[in-house]
Amino acid sequence: MTGSGPDRRTFLQGGAAVLGGAALALGGRAAWDASTSTGPAVDPARDATAVDATAVDATAAGSAVVPFTGDRQAGVGTPPPAFVSLVAFDLVAGVDRGALVRLMRIWTDDLGRLTAGRPGLGDTEPELAGVPASLTATVGFGPGVFTACDLEAARPPWLAPLPALAVDRLQDTWSGGDLVVQICADDELTVAHTMRVLARQARTFTTVRWVQRGFRRSAGTTAPGTTMRNLMGQVDGTRNLVPGTDDALIWHEAGADTPAWLVGGTSMVVRRIAMDLDTWDALDRSGREIAVGRRLSDGAPLTGTAEHDEPDLDAVNDLGFTVIDTVAHIRRARSDNPDERFLRRGYNFDDPPAPPALSNSGLLFVTFQRDVTAQFVPIARRLDELDLMNTWTTPIGSAVFAVPGGCQEGEYLGQRLLG
Amino acid sequence: MTGSGPDRRTFLQGGAAVLGGAALALGGRAAWDASTSTGPAVDPARDATAVDATAVDATAAGSAVVPFTGDRQAGVGTPPPAFVSLVAFDLVAGVDRGALVRLMRIWTDDLGRLTAGRPGLGDTEPELAGVPASLTATVGFGPGVFTACDLEAARPPWLAPLPALAVDRLQDTWSGGDLVVQICADDELTVAHTMRVLARQARTFTTVRWVQRGFRRSAGTTAPGTTMRNLMGQVDGTRNLVPGTDDALIWHEAGADTPAWLVGGTSMVVRRIAMDLDTWDALDRSGREIAVGRRLSDGAPLTGTAEHDEPDLDAVNDLGFTVIDTVAHIRRARSDNPDERFLRRGYNFDDPPAPPALSNSGLLFVTFQRDVTAQFVPIARRLDELDLMNTWTTPIGSAVFAVPGGCQEGEYLGQRLLG
Ligand code: HEM
Ligand code: HEM
Repeated sequence: MTGSGPDRRTFLQGGAAVLGGAALALGGRAAWDASTSTGPAVDPARDATAVDATAVDATAAGSAVVPFTGDRQAGVGTPPPAFVSLVAFDLVAGVDRGALVRLMRIWTDDLGRLTAGRPGLGDTEPELAGVPASLTATVGFGPGVFTACDLEAARPPWLAPLPALAVDRLQDTWSGGDLVVQICADDELTVAHTMRVLARQARTFTTVRWVQRGFRRSAGTTAPGTTMRNLMGQVDGTRNLVPGTDDALIWHEAGADTPAWLVGGTSMVVRRIAMDLDTWDALDRSGREIAVGRRLSDGAPLTGTAEHDEPDLDAVNDLGFTVIDTVAHIRRARSDNPDERFLRRGYNFDDPPAPPALSNSGLLFVTFQRDVTAQFVPIARRLDELDLMNTWTTPIGSAVFAVPGGCQEGEYLGQRLLG
Repeated sequence: MTGSGPDRRTFLQGGAAVLGGAALALGGRAAWDASTSTGPAVDPARDATAVDATAVDATAAGSAVVPFTGDRQAGVGTPPPAFVSLVAFDLVAGVDRGALVRLMRIWTDDLGRLTAGRPGLGDTEPELAGVPASLTATVGFGPGVFTACDLEAARPPWLAPLPALAVDRLQDTWSGGDLVVQICADDELTVAHTMRVLARQARTFTTVRWVQRGFRRSAGTTAPGTTMRNLMGQVDGTRNLVPGTDDALIWHEAGADTPAWLVGGTSMVVRRIAMDLDTWDALDRSGREIAVGRRLSDGAPLTGTAEHDEPDLDAVNDLGFTVIDTVAHIRRARSDNPDERFLRRGYNFDDPPAPPALSNSGLLFVTFQRDVTAQFVPIARRLDELDLMNTWTTPIGSAVFAVPGGCQEGEYLGQRLLG
């Protein structure tokens, strides 16, 4: 496996951020690493992690538009903006294929407008639609869609609840769902408004099953290219699949075995993982760095000096022990099989605690991969078996969705499955 | 009463936003109307509501610092950044004046550091402290502090639960509290980290009673000077007290009747007000505009053409009815007594709905005024009696706090009360 440094730079060179006073269009290949889509166009000659003080328009973060139509849905390979609301819906009894087609037509039309900064059709708060702020909405189908639509034969084998893991303490309130929408934007009001429009349109077809809100650093607060930090203080997301480079592991591509609706599609795993910050905070820094195998200060591997250095898993210290612990998270989270990788696109959550707890924090751990069973499950099992991080983290919610390919102008989402 | 336009402009001229690559210091008199503290220095010759495309540093929103020490606490007269977490604590049995002094010393020290972008003392996630993002933390004392500290004689008469209102459907879980901290910043991770540091330091003294999180548009998404919109789609905050101009109504100033600890202090009312968006959305636009007395499109009064036009409460239409309804919110919310005004500094909330609801939205209605009884209560009673908006809004939480004056270098918060 090669280090992520060179790939990262290659990818950044493919970035196509176009800055303008009115709208900032970010294509699917725009720099993933530009943690905010409002950053300046990336200078390929410059290290992406260096502070970039290039001036940007004072409202650019608000007018930034991510194209809605395309071969793939946005919100997977596009740079993660600051906020997410994941909304899972259950289909009400009687909703069949015809009804779902109607809903998908409506949602597709609304999302085409909203992501462009225009009100949805029949939008009752049209004034809230004017700040697209890199809005994306990614729609996924749970197993229930295939049942309700009499499409069991078309259900991908990996579209099912994950196998039970010993670490799981799953709560029904955070698990499952027939439909999901992942709404991302750099503005919470935009996210809230988009969710409201979609939920209203769906109200005769669905009930809201759960809503999970998450955040990263706000646009304009950290240099483009900065990897996010989670609430344990760790740099989180350093070694990841890179859209544009690792596409074959992220998306289904056209081929004999690929049903038309999955071309440009992917799968989405949502795990709600609670952090026990009280016991974590009681640990000293060195213990915490051992748990992951990376430094807290800058995310560098314990065998390296910079975040993107390749960890040396064989390096030993004076006592003959490996520098990166045998059960450190980054050792256990990788496999010798290079296919067992996925795109992590998670967010922090920090909800009001139930007394006497001080906080209710964790990670909305969201991954995208071509095949859940082949890529995600083996790593989840490895970590379940042995991972120092399990001491402080507990999965409390779990759901799996199939994300159909994108839609072109005039098409509706999921048309090649439902149409 | 004069229109707010001239005052607004005068105030903006007093703005002291200083832009720099490393830190953006905003004094207490900095432009309230700059809805983001990261906006460019306001050009007094330009209308504050016009789009300002002046370039800003790509990370300026992150490095912006609001001074912590001063005659007044920050977070009242300083421009509201995008996010708030209001955290109320109850003192545990046995916490007395001495214990509270210890807690205030610790919090003061931590807040001095955190607001400057430095880790708190014993901060277990020091790396999360580096993005101050206009962080402010405003500490308030509930009635319980005066009881626990044997200071009943010093409790201001207005520091008590609000009188019962007919519209109230108050829930204990969102009401009361012995201590409050209003944490505001342009970054959610900064808010979460600050809350965690304060709650950890307080854990032997307090339990967390409630946490309420709110948002406005993100920094960098809308032009500085844009009034916020709430989740009903309304422009909310147009006619408001202006820090710098209306100080005598906001803060206690030195004088024979003012105890030393209240000089530079104020009072804080927190009302959690739920919106019934389902019935609101069922109403037509004209009905909604009548309810407030202002247009949805731009917030202009129904008798005017621009947001900051003074409403003409006497204007009548062809049929002889007043253009602004007799029970419209803006008519009922103002009194002939110019002292019955307060500073509204609210935020939107949008929490996960409990099925079958589609949303769980509303306003964290936060006000600051010298005297709750003289300024806030008369208006609350007027609105309770008659206000078209009552049809769609319901207060579900309520709390009142005394906000002591600010502390100088070397002092701790509340020292002039507790010391
Ligand atoms: C709250 C729970 C978790 C936390 C706080 C966490 C944190 C981290 C951190 C700090 C890193 C190192 C930096 C990086 O490369 O991103 C990392 C790497 C990684 N994590 Fe996690 N993680 C969590 C759960 C999981 C789970 C459940 C999985 C998979 C099922 C997973 C898979 C990975 C992978 C694949 C890597 C990259 C390993 C490499 O190639 O070096 N993590 N995680
Ligand atoms: C969810 C509940 C509420 C909503 C959605 C709401 C909305 C609004 C709107 C849209 C305006 C007009 C624009 C402006 O000047 O800001 C306004 C004005 C105002 N509101 Fe409210 N409001 C609510 C509750 C309250 C409450 C509980 C009070 C006081 C107890 C209050 C006091 C005022 C005042 C004093 C004004 C300015 C009136 C003027 O001088 O023209 N509001 N509100």
